[in-house]
Formats: sequence, C-alpha cells, structure tokens
Amino acid sequence: MVKNFTVGVIGAGRIGKIHIENLLRKIPKANLKIVADIKIDDILKQWATQIGVPKLTSNTDDIFNDPKIEVIIICSSTDTHAKFIQEAAKSNKHVFCEKPIDTDIKRIRETLSVVNKTGIRLMVGFNRRFDRNFMRCHESVATGQIGEPQIIKITSRDPAPPSIDYIKVSGGIFLDMTIHDWDMARFQAESEVEEVYATGGVLIDPEIGKAGDIDTAVAVLKFKSGAIGIIDNSRQSVYGYDQRVEVFGSKGCVVADNEATNTVRVYTAECTNIDKIPYFFMERYMESYSAELINFFECLHKNIEPKPNGEDGLQNVLIAIAAQKSYEKNRPVKISEVEKY
Amino acid sequence: MVKNFTVGVIGAGRIGKIHIENLLRKIPKANLKIVADIKIDDILKQWATQIGVPKLTSNTDDIFNDPKIEVIIICSSTDTHAKFIQEAAKSNKHVFCEKPIDTDIKRIRETLSVVNKTGIRLMVGFNRRFDRNFMRCHESVATGQIGEPQIIKITSRDPAPPSIDYIKVSGGIFLDMTIHDWDMARFQAESEVEEVYATGGVLIDPEIGKAGDIDTAVAVLKFKSGAIGIIDNSRQSVYGYDQRVEVFGSKGCVVADNEATNTVRVYTAECTNIDKIPYFFMERYMESYSAELINFFECLHKNIEPKPNGEDGLQNVLIAIAAQKSYEKNRPVKISEVEKY
Amino acid sequence: MVKNFTVGVIGAGRIGKIHIENLLRKIPKANLKIVADIKIDDILKQWATQIGVPKLTSNTDDIFNDPKIEVIIICSSTDTHAKFIQEAAKSNKHVFCEKPIDTDIKRIRETLSVVNKTGIRLMVGFNRRFDRNFMRCHESVATGQIGEPQIIKITSRDPAPPSIDYIKVSGGIFLDMTIHDWDMARFQAESEVEEVYATGGVLIDPEIGKAGDIDTAVAVLKFKSGAIGIIDNSRQSVYGYDQRVEVFGSKGCVVADNEATNTVRVYTAECTNIDKIPYFFMERYMESYSAELINFFECLHKNIEPKPNGEDGLQNVLIAIAAQKSYEKNRPVKISEVEKY
Amino acid sequence: MVKNFTVGVIGAGRIGKIHIENLLRKIPKANLKIVADIKIDDILKQWATQIGVPKLTSNTDDIFNDPKIEVIIICSSTDTHAKFIQEAAKSNKHVFCEKPIDTDIKRIRETLSVVNKTGIRLMVGFNRRFDRNFMRCHESVATGQIGEPQIIKITSRDPAPPSIDYIKVSGGIFLDMTIHDWDMARFQAESEVEEVYATGGVLIDPEIGKAGDIDTAVAVLKFKSGAIGIIDNSRQSVYGYDQRVEVFGSKGCVVADNEATNTVRVYTAECTNIDKIPYFFMERYMESYSAELINFFECLHKNIEPKPNGEDGLQNVLIAIAAQKSYEKNRPVKISEVEKY
Repeated sequence: MVKNFTVGVIGAGRIGKIHIENLLRKIPKANLKIVADIKIDDILKQWATQIGVPKLTSNTDDIFNDPKIEVIIICSSTDTHAKFIQEAAKSNKHVFCEKPIDTDIKRIRETLSVVNKTGIRLMVGFNRRFDRNFMRCHESVATGQIGEPQIIKITSRDPAPPSIDYIKVSGGIFLDMTIHDWDMARFQAESEVEEVYATGGVLIDPEIGKAGDIDTAVAVLKFKSGAIGIIDNSRQSVYGYDQRVEVFGSKGCVVADNEATNTVRVYTAECTNIDKIPYFFMERYMESYSAELINFFECLHKNIEPKPNGEDGLQNVLIAIAAQKSYEKNRPVKISEVEKY
Repeated sequence: MVKNFTVGVIGAGRIGKIHIENLLRKIPKANLKIVADIKIDDILKQWATQIGVPKLTSNTDDIFNDPKIEVIIICSSTDTHAKFIQEAAKSNKHVFCEKPIDTDIKRIRETLSVVNKTGIRLMVGFNRRFDRNFMRCHESVATGQIGEPQIIKITSRDPAPPSIDYIKVSGGIFLDMTIHDWDMARFQAESEVEEVYATGGVLIDPEIGKAGDIDTAVAVLKFKSGAIGIIDNSRQSVYGYDQRVEVFGSKGCVVADNEATNTVRVYTAECTNIDKIPYFFMERYMESYSAELINFFECLHKNIEPKPNGEDGLQNVLIAIAAQKSYEKNRPVKISEVEKY
Repeated sequence: MVKNFTVGVIGAGRIGKIHIENLLRKIPKANLKIVADIKIDDILKQWATQIGVPKLTSNTDDIFNDPKIEVIIICSSTDTHAKFIQEAAKSNKHVFCEKPIDTDIKRIRETLSVVNKTGIRLMVGFNRRFDRNFMRCHESVATGQIGEPQIIKITSRDPAPPSIDYIKVSGGIFLDMTIHDWDMARFQAESEVEEVYATGGVLIDPEIGKAGDIDTAVAVLKFKSGAIGIIDNSRQSVYGYDQRVEVFGSKGCVVADNEATNTVRVYTAECTNIDKIPYFFMERYMESYSAELINFFECLHKNIEPKPNGEDGLQNVLIAIAAQKSYEKNRPVKISEVEKY
Repeated sequence: MVKNFTVGVIGAGRIGKIHIENLLRKIPKANLKIVADIKIDDILKQWATQIGVPKLTSNTDDIFNDPKIEVIIICSSTDTHAKFIQEAAKSNKHVFCEKPIDTDIKRIRETLSVVNKTGIRLMVGFNRRFDRNFMRCHESVATGQIGEPQIIKITSRDPAPPSIDYIKVSGGIFLDMTIHDWDMARFQAESEVEEVYATGGVLIDPEIGKAGDIDTAVAVLKFKSGAIGIIDNSRQSVYGYDQRVEVFGSKGCVVADNEATNTVRVYTAECTNIDKIPYFFMERYMESYSAELINFFECLHKNIEPKPNGEDGLQNVLIAIAAQKSYEKNRPVKISEVEKY
C-alpha cells in the first residue's frame, strides 16, 4: 500500500493558497497538518476554515519541530527560502520550494550542501515543466521522436509590466522573468548551458530603464551538447500572455503554441477572428501547479529524485547572472565565468 | 448581500458526485446539507467524508421534508426524475434536474404543469450549453455578429458504443444520444423546431441493429425561423469524442472545433502530427458541469428563469420522438404530429 | 515515346480560355490546332494571338472534319454539349466536355449511347475532383486509411448570388449549384446514390423565391454502400467562398478546410485575425482546372477510362432531379423514381 | 496609356527560365526581345522555341548594344553581376539583378556608384519580400497595425544541405543562406542593422565543418530603431522547407506560418495527421518570383525607385560579413566595423 505523507506548508499567499488547495483536493495521499504564515488575519482564517486547513500557525517551528510532518512546502518570500530549506533538511523533512532557492550563488551552494548531506528530497517549483504542452514537447525529445535537439526556441512575453516598485527589487529581467525560460531551455535541451549571450533594451517604458532594468530581452544559449537556445522576452505583449516553445532536432521539430481561450473561429465579411489568448500565468499555468505537486509526491512515494531539483535551481540562477553580465559587457559570457561567485 | 441557499442532492452516482464536488468547491453560496442515495455503502461513505458531505441518507424525505432546504439537485435514475421534480415543487423547493425529465411526453407535461403552479425554478441539465466553445458560438448569434442564423450544423460522435444491454433500454439513439444535439440546435438557432427528417443505419455493429437501434444517424431540422439544422451522429468515432458546432448566418459563420489535448505539433519526415482529441464527455465537458451549476445558482440569486428549463426539456423529447417516427416512416415529421402524445 | 495529341477547342468564353491557356502552357503533349467560337471579335483575336492560338474559326466543322484532330474540348454553352459530344463521337474524336452533358435525362442517355458505340473517351468537367485538398481526402478513402466511408459532409456556399436573370434559366439550385456537390459526394463515398432528401428555403433574397428558386439548401443522400451524405448550400456566404469536405469512416475521418489567403495570424489587443478566404471559384479552383486537363490527357495516353466520365455526368443530373422532386414533395425520393425520365 | 518595355535577359539557367516564363506569361507590357546565355545547346533552343523566346544569343553585346532594349534582367552567375550591372547602367538600361550584386563590398560600392551616376533603376532579386505571407506581415508593420516593431524572428531552414562542393564555394552560410534572412529582417523591421551577433556549429554533417563552414546558425541583430532581430538557420530540416516570420510590436504581433501542402487533416485512432510542408524554394516561393518581376515593371512604369534596390543588396552583404566575423571572434560586431571593406 502507498504510504501517506503528513505535510506542513509555510506561506499562504497567492501561490501558497494554490498549493494548499491542490494538496487538499488532488493529492489524497498527502495529509496537510499545519499551515504557517507570518500574518494570520481573519480573512486567512476564514479561507482556511472553508478550505479545510486543520491548523494555522504563525510559528514555523510548529512545523519544523513536529516529528509527524515529513514534507514541507515552502511558499514564503524568496529571502526565506534558503533558511527554511536548510532547517527542513536538518529536521530531515522533504522539501518542495518555490523558485528561486536564492539569488545569491554562494547561498544556494551552501543550501544544497546541507541538503545533500541529508537524505531529503528537494524539488524547486519550476512549474512550467509540468505544463501539458511543454511536457508534450519534452516527450518528443525524450523519446527520440525528433532526434538530437539542435535549436531550442522559447517565446515568453508578459501581458503587462509589473509596477516600477516591483521592477526595482526584482533582480532584473534575467533573474525575475527569464529564470523560467532558462529552466525550460535546459529541460527541453536535456543539456547544460555553457555560454550565454544576452541583449535587449528599453522599448516599452522608459521608467523601467530609469529603474535600472530593461523590458525587452533576447538571449542565445550554447549548450554542452552543441545545441543552441534562443529566448525572447517582452514585458508587454498587448495581445496576451505569449508562451511558446519549439525544439528543432535532427529528426523533426516539435512546436507548442499558446493555449486558446476557446476553439471558435468567427468568419465575417471583414476577416476571421479568434479570441485572445488567456491573459496571465494564473490562467495559463494553473493546471501545471497541481501536476507539479502530484509529481513531487509521486517521487517521494517511489523514492526517486524529483526534477527540477536543487541543482536545476542553481543552474538557472547561474545563467541569469551570466546573462546579466553578458548584457552589461555586450559579449558572450561563459557559465564558468560566474560559477565562482 | 447575496443570499445563501441550502441544498439537498438526490443521487450520488457518477454525475451526482460531479455536481456535489462542484457545489462544495465552486459555489460558496450553496450550502450542501444532505445527500440522498438509494445505496449507501462504505465506499460512498468514505467519499462523502473525504469530500465534506455533511449528511448521507437513504431516505429522500429527509430532503423533501427539511424546511431549511430550498434547492434540490436531482441526479437519480431517469425514471425517478418526474416524481422527484413534482415532490420538490410541492415542497416549494427549486430544482436542478439531470436530463431528461422523462421519456414520456404526457408525464413531462404533467410534471411541468405541477412546476408551473408553484413559483419554483427548474433547470434541466443540458450541460453542453455551458461548454465554453458552444457558449462562444451562441454569443456570436445572440449579439448579432453573424446575423440571422440560416444553417446550424452539429457533429456529435461518441468514441465507442455503449454495451448492447444499455442500447436495449436507452430509448434509441435519438432519445439517448441526439437529445443533447436537439437542445444544442435549438440553443444556437434561437428558434423552435417545426419539422424533422431523420435517417441512419447500422454501419458499426450489427448487434446494435438486433437490439432494435441504429448506430449512425443524420437529422435535418426545420426551424420556425426558416433556419435549417443538420445533425450527424455516430456511436463510434475511433479518433475520439467528436463534438463540433457551426452556425452559418446572414452576416458570417461561427465554428467551434474540438478541444485539443495540447497545442503541440510534431513535424517529422513523414508528416505533421497532432495528438488525439480528448476521449469522452467527462474530459470534454467537465468544466461545463460547474459552469452550468454556477449559472443555475446565479439565476436563483437574481430570481430569473434559468435556461434550459422545463420547456426545453419537453421540446427536446418531442423532437426525439418525431425523429424516431421520421426514421421509421422515412418521411419528414412535424413536431405538431407528436405533440399530442 | 509518348504520343502527341492534336486538339480542337469549341468555345472560348471564360472557362474555354482557361482550358486553352492550360493546354498551351502545361500540357506539352497536346498540340492545339484550332479554336472555334460563335463570336470572333477583335478582343478574342488579340487574345488568341498573344497566347499563341494557331487558328480561330467560327465554324465547328473545321474541327470535326479535320482528320488530324483527335481530341475535342467542349466549352460552349450547355445546350450545345450533347450535340457536340455526339458529333465528336461520330468523328471518332475523344472528348473533354464541360459539365453538365445536358439537363435532360433522355438526351444524356442518348448521348452516352452514341459515345459507347464508339471507342472514344469522354471526361466531364467536374473539376473539383482535382482540387488538391479534395483529392487528398479521396486518397484517404481510396487507400483505406479512414476505413469504410460512413458519413460524407460537404459544405458549399457561394460568396454572392448570381443575377436574378441567371437564376431564372439556371435550372434551379440543385442542378446549377449542388451539381458539383452531388459529384463530390459520389467521388468521396465511392458509391452510388440510392435516395435523396432535399429541403431548403429562401433566406437571402425574396427575388430568388419569386424567380422560382431557393437560395439555401440542405440535402441528405443515402448511398448503396449504406453511407450517408450531407450537403449544405447557400447562395450568399458573406465571408467568402466556403468549400469544405469531410469523410467520416470506420477507421478515421478526413477533413478538408478552405484554402487560406495566406498563413498569417495577426494578434492584437482585441483578438486574433486571419484574412478572409479567397473570394470565388476562379481563385479557389484555378489549379484544379489544369490538374483536370492534365489528368484527361494522361488517361488518353495510357488508354484508360477517364473519371468523371459520362456515367458520372448522368448520375449527377439524376440526383439533381430527384432532389428537386424531394424538395417539392417534401419527402425522400429514390433515384430509381426519376431514372425513367 | 501605359508604355511597353523591351527587355533582354542574360542567363537562362534555372532562375533565368523562371523569369523568362513570367515575362512572357504574366507581364504583357514587357516585350522580351533577346535572351543571352553562354551555352546555347539544343535543349535550350527547344525550350526557347516552345516558350516563345524571339531570339537567343551567346553574345551579351547583342543586348547591351540594342538601343530598343530598355530593361535587362541579369540571371547569370554571381561573379558577372557587378560587371553586367555597370555595363547596363552605362548603356542607360534599367536592371533587375539576381542577388547578390557581389560578395565583395568594394566592388558593390563601385557598382552602385556607377548606377547612381545614371538615372537607371536597379532592383535586386530578394524575392521573399514578395511572398504573399511575408508581404502580409509587412503590411501589418507598414500600416501600424502592430505598432512599432520590437522583436523580429525569422526561421529559415533548408530541407537538406547542398553538396560539399557547393558549400566550399558558397561563401559560407551567412552569405549563402542567411542573406535572404538579413534582407527579410530589414524589410520587416523597417530599420537598418547596427550590430550583429552570430553563432552556430556543425550539428548535421562533419564534412560541412571540414569544408570550413557551419550547418546550424543563430544570429541576433540590433536595429537602429532599437528593435532586435533573431534568425535561426539549419541546413537540414527533415520535415521540409521551414520558412516563418514573426514581427512582435508595441500594438500586436504578426506571425506567418509555413505554407501547407493542403488543408486536410486526417484523424485516426493514433493521432491527427497533416501532410508535410512543401519541399523546397521552387515550390514555396514560385509565386513570389512573378510578383517580384511584376512589381519591378510597375516601378518602372510609375517611374519610382524599386525595393529592394542596390542599397539593400549592399546592406545584406555587410551584415553577412559582420556575422561571419562575429562567429569567428565570438563577439557582437558592428556593421560600421565592416563597412570600410
């Protein structure tokens, strides 16, 4: 019989709530015991009662010190991730942690080192790997249907830029937005990145430039396998959240288009119309969050290493830092150049 | 403030479970109080506990006699629908009833007569009206975007025939399978059917013929508006559950294609591949069941007549009976010919 | 070595010019010798010179009596087809004749009887069989890829009605417009029609009704194989020339969509746009005219029976007449009922 | 009345024949007088007679010295282009010249200088600008429908590599294959390129590497407007000739997909199939060659500057040379760095 896992969740913000709902509704073998959040107000209490959260706490030690709890889902703010992962590891509890582990390479390495000394499993929440379309792409790669990947193309454009306040603390487009695409490129290429060339500019809002960031970015990746990756990002795609992946290989090519709002075509005397694509990541990737968590628990049940794991979390940040350097120096930058950080 | 409704459900089979889950998870203003089922075993009890059903009963009177309960969802077997609707109406409770109300015209009329004497609301579960694609088609009709509907085309093909035992008690393809399409055609045409011509044959399995039914059917509908409807049905579409709608009008045409399993195209040296369409109605129409129930409660809250209502339930059965007669006599049959039944 | 054929063309109107250009440019083994037309004016002369027509005549005997001419292409008005086919047959010349052979069953039979007594080949110009998309559909039928055809669906809608004057002499929608669809249905079904039910109405222009015709038509065909055909026609599709074919079979389904004007999608903040489909048959079927003629000459070279042949021409008219009767009597009509005419 | 132009063609190889056929059949106002070719054999003579070429010569002076000839179409080998353009300019004849003008910057400049001193018109044969799909993309740019172009993406992949012998003399992938894409990117961006970063590798055939070239290439372009271009090339796309363009702008995005072989989808129990895309440039771009030449003559008639002109020819070669340098040095290269050559 399959073992049940007792679970604690840290952080009940937007993404935390999604994971908690998925735990309660879609993963019967996961028994949620405690949810911790730094701010427990009436709205949160009401939500917790309605959804069926057994216990709310503002003290994370209630989770770390509970010997029954074997799995911790970390959905708190990024600056707490490394600390909580380490604490969980020391308490011998498996961890699912929202991305990124940290934005500081040294701190990530230190965290992974603690993780590796214990037998715990760590999955990092790059949920797009579990999108049904991108999974299907990867299936064509993994089964050899399209042969050796040679060119990986990712289009990733947000419908609208975040606030300038957010931009200022985001870590820059390569760490904030492209981070998902670094992971997707590595996932599809089945190889690690050796060198990155990144460029871009401020084409949408000069305020973004004043905040020290760019709003349009293009990156070229050279993989160890010889494959080449191409990513293009925009902070403002007026027609919706544009998320596409293409893998060109020696035996074929697999292309994942955007999800459609519906399957309807309207033919009129002027033209044929299709409704706009879904607006943002909540609509687009909702299913991937549950698929991701289901996969994580399957890995725990089967006692196998989950993917994307801590190493993936590290590699994606390394590429982001190399990309930032490439953009600043206007030259290709090897990952080995930034690994020392 | 929006009023809460206390709800009882009769029948916790496959479709009943779907409605119960939707009530609990997606309609916060509906408070499920009791679920009745003729057979309460351990599996049902376990499911009820896990999902959060407050009370299980095998006695439907627990629902009809509870003055707190204002709304009843009827998901029991077809032969009980008319009786339960009438009992609910007499208890002054609103009703959502799975389709069909009955297969006997007289009994439907009698039931609607009871309903009409009370102030209760009745929605009949033709869920496909709430499919996002077919809703979008109807939007183009309702807003006048495609002008006056002139030709309505519905393709409705099951992936595989049901068992011969089921076929024998199904009431025939026109009442069992096409019933959804009669409703869809009326929904899109925004007009009532005046005459139907139906034909078909046994092209898939001779056993279906021996059981007195056909497995392939085509029907032509003449609407009062002058529009013409075309429906084609097959009990076996090997490539999956084929569900399409097209409305051609004086100012344009709207076409709803099948839902895709994913958005991926695989290009190989042989051809380009797209994955098969989703297999059956549970996958295809799952969202429409919650949209339907949400709409029903919205109608109750706004105190407006829900659609499809009892009259829709009646019309769809009238057309089915006329179609059966048309097939048997090999001539067009007017709805007025069968209305007297 | 492949034999050259010397060719005469009767009729240099719109469709005649297309065939002549195709003969001169795309069929090197066909040597055009004479073109006959009842009205030879300066414009025609100039066109003939420019395109390279060796000789123009107003006397068709120049063609029939020329022993060098082995093949005649008949593009004159419909009322002359039967006469010219018979004359050609008597002169022992192969014939490609524009559709229809005639609108009178007796006269068609008489003509085919003359043809059959000689060894000549006769192809009737149902060019849509040579459309690349519909050919591809038929390939899936002919190779067994989709198994036994069970339902054949044809959508055939003109962008705008012809003049009322034309409507009056057209022979009615079933003979004028649906004639192509009868042929297409038989081509795809690989079976002959046994019974037809036709209905329709005047939904577009009351003047069409006053002229004794309808502008919207739907027909259901029963094939000897058991397959069922569905055709829908409209004289006015505001979004362009809508020409689609679908064949549903025991092992799959093949669907030919409209040709696109281009492959471009424009994504804007409002919706996604695709350009309108090509306007009318000249744009849509231009390639099929050359493919048709090339195929005809290949049949002559290989000394095999061309398809569609005289029998196809006959069957298509029989169905049209049965459909007209079905519409008038409002009941299905067997082809055998009208065969005696 | 519109003036007729008397035309001479130099070079009757594969592309020359296409232009000659288009001249004779599709441009009535162009009177072809002489075709010159260095090698006049029986096959060419026969072809010329059949197609209607009035005169064949092996002496190009027959064209340059003929005062009646006002327009010269140059389709001879690349090494002769600059010489013949200069001769034509000196003879005061307009020129349509196949791309490229030359592969040497100095020689191109010298040629353009001669052209500019005369009043003649010069179009360079970047035919893809006249592809109906890419024209439609550009229309969305030119009309402002998608706002300011920000990201231009071009996918350009050949079905199979040319012979190694050809590779050796091709000038390298950036000059031989990407040259069309430099032009397309500039056409869509409506801006000139300032800097290029190019990378790539030998992923298909090591022999291509031994011949000093690469078979897979990716380039990033920075335009003066701030827009960014991305091009990816492969010498071997097993699924056919992959030619796509995308322009992302401030108000929308326009995407041109590959041309389809037909519009048919085959649904089977395994998957849905679409036929492969057309094999190579002759199939894909055939129409663009006639559209290009028609446009050239329209420019002459209207006495306006044709596009793409000599300057376009120069810019495209400059980018190719910069890309080659970028690849070799593994750093971005400004066009100004190579302009001095």
